[in-house]
Amino acid sequence: MSVTISNLIHVLTKLPGIGEKTATRLAFFILRQPPQYAEALAKALVDVKEKVTFCSVCLDLTERDPCEICSDTRRDASLICVVEEPSDVLAVEKTKQFRGRYHILHGAISPLDGIGPDDIKIAELLKRIGSSDIKEVIVATNASVEGETTALYLAKILKPKGIKLSRIASGVPIGSNLEYIDASTLSRAFEARRQL
Amino acid sequence: MSVTISNLIHVLTKLPGIGEKTATRLAFFILRQPPQYAEALAKALVDVKEKVTFCSVCLDLTERDPCEICSDTRRDASLICVVEEPSDVLAVEKTKQFRGRYHILHGAISPLDGIGPDDIKIAELLKRIGSSDIKEVIVATNASVEGETTALYLAKILKPKGIKLSRIASGVPIGSNLEYIDASTLSRAFEARRQL
Repeated sequence: MSVTISNLIHVLTKLPGIGEKTATRLAFFILRQPPQYAEALAKALVDVKEKVTFCSVCLDLTERDPCEICSDTRRDASLICVVEEPSDVLAVEKTKQFRGRYHILHGAISPLDGIGPDDIKIAELLKRIGSSDIKEVIVATNASVEGETTALYLAKILKPKGIKLSRIASGVPIGSNLEYIDASTLSRAFEARRQL
Repeated sequence: MSVTISNLIHVLTKLPGIGEKTATRLAFFILRQPPQYAEALAKALVDVKEKVTFCSVCLDLTERDPCEICSDTRRDASLICVVEEPSDVLAVEKTKQFRGRYHILHGAISPLDGIGPDDIKIAELLKRIGSSDIKEVIVATNASVEGETTALYLAKILKPKGIKLSRIASGVPIGSNLEYIDASTLSRAFEARRQL
């Protein structure tokens, strides 16, 4: 096979969830497209690495600093939603429910992987809380072991500071059948039951 | 969200099997990598479109004309394996069984999609057979309706020319359990049974 094709396949296999078969399929798809497609993708890749940096306030990915959300004065600056990754901001924004600002930890505490509180952006969060008027922090880390550990750690260090702290609810996802829900989610849903 | 990130996600969703969620995951993965990765992928994309053309003999994708296989004198030039797509050549080469050359049709006859014999590279195959000493043609189009239709059409036009023509076998894939095999594959396997 052509060296340039096998090189493209090789680079594509580095992407998450893309094995050799999928990479080969993608490479041949790109070869069948008009050259504009490969050029547009190449330009988008270069652009994204050249133009996108981190917001100095919330640490989200952005093209301008502070980011759009941090510089939007209509949003409540005293309310912070703490998430693990920039992609989580997208997920929360889609709900159109949250009108405060964010803080991105860029990870979660995971002792098994050797990731402690100092390896994620917790110091930056504490500094932000110390220097501006933050009234409430909503912890929206994942409902995984790592996300829960991180939430517990944040509770331990933020509660003594007298900040209102909350954790997003866990439970049965809307639209699901109970028979397909795992036992830990279901027991959490029972614990957190609400009076009707 | 940043315009350049949403642009990258948009371009990625054009790839086959990549929806918005996967594209978002890939884009954020790329953003987490050192810039060299995005640059390497961008370069591989541009290279592949600039350097790769079609072999004038077999119509495979190649960087040099004739392609490596067509210019390899150790391979039998009188034996041609006809396949639908360049990716099929890779699949056959992996078997290390076939030591002839290829002809890529770039498609298959599909009346439902309005693709007739003139829309794929059959004329080029006939010209090649007419101008050089071809002794045998192995039809390795897919075992789909379109691939079978194409094989039947090739048989109709090549048999009168007195060329030895064969079709790769259909049957139960090695390693499969009969209970998971569809009925048409299994009935084909019975029809094509061999004496032990």
